[in-house]
Amino acid sequence: MIKVGIVGGTGYTGVELLRILSQHPEVEIQAITSRKEAGVAVHELFPGLRGKVKLNFSDPDETNLGKCDVVFFATPNGVAMKQTADLLNAGVRVIDLAADFRIRDVLVWEKWYGMTHASPELLSEAVYGLPEVNRNEIKAARLVANPGCYPTAVQLGFLPLIELGIIDAEHLIADVKSGVSGAGRNAEIHTLYAEVSDNFKAYGVSGHRHYPEIKQGLSKIADKSVDLTFVPHLTPMIRGIHATLYARLTASIDLQELFEKRYVNEPFVDVLPAGSHPETRSVRGSNFCRISVHLPQEGDTAVVLVVTDNLVKGAAGQAVQNMNLMFGFSETLGINQIAQIP
Amino acid sequence: MIKVGIVGGTGYTGVELLRILSQHPEVEIQAITSRKEAGVAVHELFPGLRGKVKLNFSDPDETNLGKCDVVFFATPNGVAMKQTADLLNAGVRVIDLAADFRIRDVLVWEKWYGMTHASPELLSEAVYGLPEVNRNEIKAARLVANPGCYPTAVQLGFLPLIELGIIDAEHLIADVKSGVSGAGRNAEIHTLYAEVSDNFKAYGVSGHRHYPEIKQGLSKIADKSVDLTFVPHLTPMIRGIHATLYARLTASIDLQELFEKRYVNEPFVDVLPAGSHPETRSVRGSNFCRISVHLPQEGDTAVVLVVTDNLVKGAAGQAVQNMNLMFGFSETLGINQIAQIP
Amino acid sequence: MIKVGIVGGTGYTGVELLRILSQHPEVEIQAITSRKEAGVAVHELFPGLRGKVKLNFSDPDETNLGKCDVVFFATPNGVAMKQTADLLNAGVRVIDLAADFRIRDVLVWEKWYGMTHASPELLSEAVYGLPEVNRNEIKAARLVANPGCYPTAVQLGFLPLIELGIIDAEHLIADVKSGVSGAGRNAEIHTLYAEVSDNFKAYGVSGHRHYPEIKQGLSKIADKSVDLTFVPHLTPMIRGIHATLYARLTASIDLQELFEKRYVNEPFVDVLPAGSHPETRSVRGSNFCRISVHLPQEGDTAVVLVVTDNLVKGAAGQAVQNMNLMFGFSETLGINQIAQIP
Amino acid sequence: MIKVGIVGGTGYTGVELLRILSQHPEVEIQAITSRKEAGVAVHELFPGLRGKVKLNFSDPDETNLGKCDVVFFATPNGVAMKQTADLLNAGVRVIDLAADFRIRDVLVWEKWYGMTHASPELLSEAVYGLPEVNRNEIKAARLVANPGCYPTAVQLGFLPLIELGIIDAEHLIADVKSGVSGAGRNAEIHTLYAEVSDNFKAYGVSGHRHYPEIKQGLSKIADKSVDLTFVPHLTPMIRGIHATLYARLTASIDLQELFEKRYVNEPFVDVLPAGSHPETRSVRGSNFCRISVHLPQEGDTAVVLVVTDNLVKGAAGQAVQNMNLMFGFSETLGINQIAQIP
Repeated sequence: MIKVGIVGGTGYTGVELLRILSQHPEVEIQAITSRKEAGVAVHELFPGLRGKVKLNFSDPDETNLGKCDVVFFATPNGVAMKQTADLLNAGVRVIDLAADFRIRDVLVWEKWYGMTHASPELLSEAVYGLPEVNRNEIKAARLVANPGCYPTAVQLGFLPLIELGIIDAEHLIADVKSGVSGAGRNAEIHTLYAEVSDNFKAYGVSGHRHYPEIKQGLSKIADKSVDLTFVPHLTPMIRGIHATLYARLTASIDLQELFEKRYVNEPFVDVLPAGSHPETRSVRGSNFCRISVHLPQEGDTAVVLVVTDNLVKGAAGQAVQNMNLMFGFSETLGINQIAQIP
Repeated sequence: MIKVGIVGGTGYTGVELLRILSQHPEVEIQAITSRKEAGVAVHELFPGLRGKVKLNFSDPDETNLGKCDVVFFATPNGVAMKQTADLLNAGVRVIDLAADFRIRDVLVWEKWYGMTHASPELLSEAVYGLPEVNRNEIKAARLVANPGCYPTAVQLGFLPLIELGIIDAEHLIADVKSGVSGAGRNAEIHTLYAEVSDNFKAYGVSGHRHYPEIKQGLSKIADKSVDLTFVPHLTPMIRGIHATLYARLTASIDLQELFEKRYVNEPFVDVLPAGSHPETRSVRGSNFCRISVHLPQEGDTAVVLVVTDNLVKGAAGQAVQNMNLMFGFSETLGINQIAQIP
Repeated sequence: MIKVGIVGGTGYTGVELLRILSQHPEVEIQAITSRKEAGVAVHELFPGLRGKVKLNFSDPDETNLGKCDVVFFATPNGVAMKQTADLLNAGVRVIDLAADFRIRDVLVWEKWYGMTHASPELLSEAVYGLPEVNRNEIKAARLVANPGCYPTAVQLGFLPLIELGIIDAEHLIADVKSGVSGAGRNAEIHTLYAEVSDNFKAYGVSGHRHYPEIKQGLSKIADKSVDLTFVPHLTPMIRGIHATLYARLTASIDLQELFEKRYVNEPFVDVLPAGSHPETRSVRGSNFCRISVHLPQEGDTAVVLVVTDNLVKGAAGQAVQNMNLMFGFSETLGINQIAQIP
Repeated sequence: MIKVGIVGGTGYTGVELLRILSQHPEVEIQAITSRKEAGVAVHELFPGLRGKVKLNFSDPDETNLGKCDVVFFATPNGVAMKQTADLLNAGVRVIDLAADFRIRDVLVWEKWYGMTHASPELLSEAVYGLPEVNRNEIKAARLVANPGCYPTAVQLGFLPLIELGIIDAEHLIADVKSGVSGAGRNAEIHTLYAEVSDNFKAYGVSGHRHYPEIKQGLSKIADKSVDLTFVPHLTPMIRGIHATLYARLTASIDLQELFEKRYVNEPFVDVLPAGSHPETRSVRGSNFCRISVHLPQEGDTAVVLVVTDNLVKGAAGQAVQNMNLMFGFSETLGINQIAQIP
């Protein structure tokens, strides 16, 4: 049993962490902080947790996280970077579900996130928590930067093609659709039910913060500069990411075999049979990523379809997967729930 | 470990049974039958079960269910009544999720279900599987009639009031709203997305098959004739039942205390604090029933709000709760999942 | 052609007024005010109006509404009561879509709305704008209090029964379901897509502001005190109200004939054939109210089903219907759009 | 006033034609046929049309359409091709909303639609009814092939780029998302609410029937062979198409200016200001097509965003636009409704 703390527990990522960790057989949740809701029972805010989570939210200033084995940050960007150094010094390992430690180049980070980084010295130590790429580094990490939801799906979809170097890596296209929970539990007009329901739109075409993260990740895998056009869309559903990826092939290859071989040993990446179309509900509430690959009209444009749950493999589930790796648990422990159908 | 068979596995109740039973630590699923899909892998129809359920659907005529410890019928009405006697004779216990054994009076059943009952001799043996009312009988039962989704919610909401005899039991009102999955996985126009979404309507006001079931259940609890007006509504959501119940009080009482005391030992009935409004998502995918009780404007009309997941406490979850009771397992084993929020 | 002003045009009621009035053949929209969006083109906020509405929002302090023939208030409660007297003095007629002038008894109003009324002297002059009850008074009115969305549906459903005096009018039950747009275009967590979608709940059971409005309206029709239990629910759809009304009959009568006769000359109330169940989408975007009436199981409890579009017959459409009456236009002018199916 | 007939009025395209044509000032609907619903009042099937459409569905074998000025086919593929020749011979003009006359090459048509064409001799006469391309031909046409919903959006988005010849026209990408009404009003499991809601998926990646239609249309515009990768997706909304189009630029140009100039005189194509993201609800129920164009990261990949209502500009609205052109009415007559927000 390890002792776990959660900083910032009132957002969708936080409550999903609670759902997963409260059922994890090797975890004891010590504290969950929220400045705004301090003193309130967790189940008052989230009645679905009645009888399952008995903690109150605690004031972050009065919460000693130094005795935890690991602390998850489920906070807005810019919070973890101020508190991580102290925790690491106290011997606590840290998993940040926000973006503070995802980008290696501090100038790039500061440009896209619009603030000065408080702990640039930690950027080189932070391990990017995509187990399918960095499993061994994650096991040894003190500080894990949990990937963004879009970057997880896009990188897993392009990964086999990039590794093999058989595509035009400077003109990738990632057309990605996300459920509304990706925008968080914030009081904003543009994510109201009456604005989003029965509606579909792209956003951030001129530039989205996940663009440099994807570019960095794919470039590292390729060991050369990769570029892409990334268009995110807001979809009238609660959970789910569907990435439709396009790449021009530069060589002929059996795509189905390539993907199956690459992911045969991955516990959470499921390559569907040839001709399949994965649907987001097949991973709703689950840590799975399901992928299929097509070559329409026998042309030279590969189409990769990727689905994940943005709050699980795209956030809290992957964070627990990383925790399992860091503490030597079975990688799938506590995150093998089955998606609900329907 | 017990051996379990499922007859009729291609509907929503069947796949929900699969989700629950495939994770149940004391269950080994032996067979799941479907005449239409015989030979097809279960995960082809339900990709969310890939890697979790490895069975193929089998032809019911070629499947020997006689070696199972228990068989679940997740079939349309009228199937279980033809096969149950043979199974019972073979020593197999049966849980029917359809309506074949719910009504004691065969004439009432035949009137509402429009067919001749094939096994009227079993009606008196069948135990109505509402554990909060019939726990002891269920433990000993060979044949359990699993309650309908509406009747479960309505009976649990009226139960404390009826037992105490403090309401006008001849003029109850049950205004109940159901998600669309309650209509099943059948190709019909009226449950198409484009028909149901952004739309709300009542149906079956002149008479719904769950009316006699509710009337029978409440009358048995009251030990006298009970009558009600029952209006079901179709709601644009996948899962969930919300019953809004109205009863005229004939005596003054602390309703909150009444409900809390009645359900204090029930593992799956959660009485919310005074002033609460339960929401269906707080039980989505969970076997919980959450209840709150109000007395608006300090009048004499009690308002009881009840939420369940129609596929779990209203069908497959309650069926497994019954199975747990029948086989001496912990009542909550394998059905203590937490609702996903959001 | 009359000159029309709109105060507060950035909410859902305001934009619906714009949609209707911009196509009304006898209306010229002079100004639409918004303190927050002053100077912004209306179509920037609402791209669906591109090419149809060329106005900018104007600062209310710099907008002379005194030359309008009529001004609509599509503002939060408490705004119209401060500005109406001046407009009336300038010869401008006023239609308030908020609640400021709906309740005759100022003490009742102040209790439920939690503020001091700024113009109690206008309450007796204000005409309650339900044309099916007050058509003649509306024609002559300087000041119309446009009814709330719930009160419109509930009153139209009970009206024929109350007028005839054949029900127990002290124990009415109104179980009403509303789409989310009824909560307005405000940045709040509880109406986010991820909170509301695939979810259903009651709210305000202990007391909702529309309760005294309904009670006042029904009591006036009955010419005696009427009481009811009113339970509103939030439904995962954008537009639509569905009222399910229950009343105990005190005499035997042909309900179908009663309703058909009462509404035979009403241009916007449509009584469906016996046995029907109206659905909200049949009035989506339309000013119609559709009603059906049932007597289940041949008992003594009448069930009335009523559907409206909360933003049309429940707000902006009814306001224009009132305007048509006030200015001697055909009552249906500009509000005879057909609901979109699907 | 012209006399109009509709063949096949029970699908979503048919009822949308009814909504539009019943309000069109120059149209008198003579007959609407349906073999299955013959004799049934239209408003029984579609209660939203109560009081607006008084016709009954008529048996096609007993309906004389020969006296109509124009007949719309809102039928499954393969019906219009059998009846059109006779109608044309009787002097009736025909607008087919199905695919029978969209493809010039009969072999291509027969390959993709899997049947033998009954009237190949009419293919060369049929005018492809995309007014923005073929306005003059449409005016004179006896037979118009109304474009598919996807092809309308995709062609309008690529049109300015293709006409100017400044893109790599052999590697276009069209990632298109459709509401569920595009699948029609047919009893099928895969479009049930409980299957589609809170879910997102691609389909038909290996080949969709709209692919050859788009390819033919773009090639004709380019006057050379054009090829594309076309991936349609099913989106949990009722109406709406969102096309996200990608094209590699071969020359530098001001894209915003190009699009604005191309469409400045088009009554139903609205180019949004630079930096915009059109949303499908801004055209819901409207005949508008709204477009924005981007060049992300100042690269060489143009991104065009296009929204339409699949049942209006993608079907019935465009059909009436064609009818207006054919009969010399104002092009916008009867199809200038404003989208409902929200």
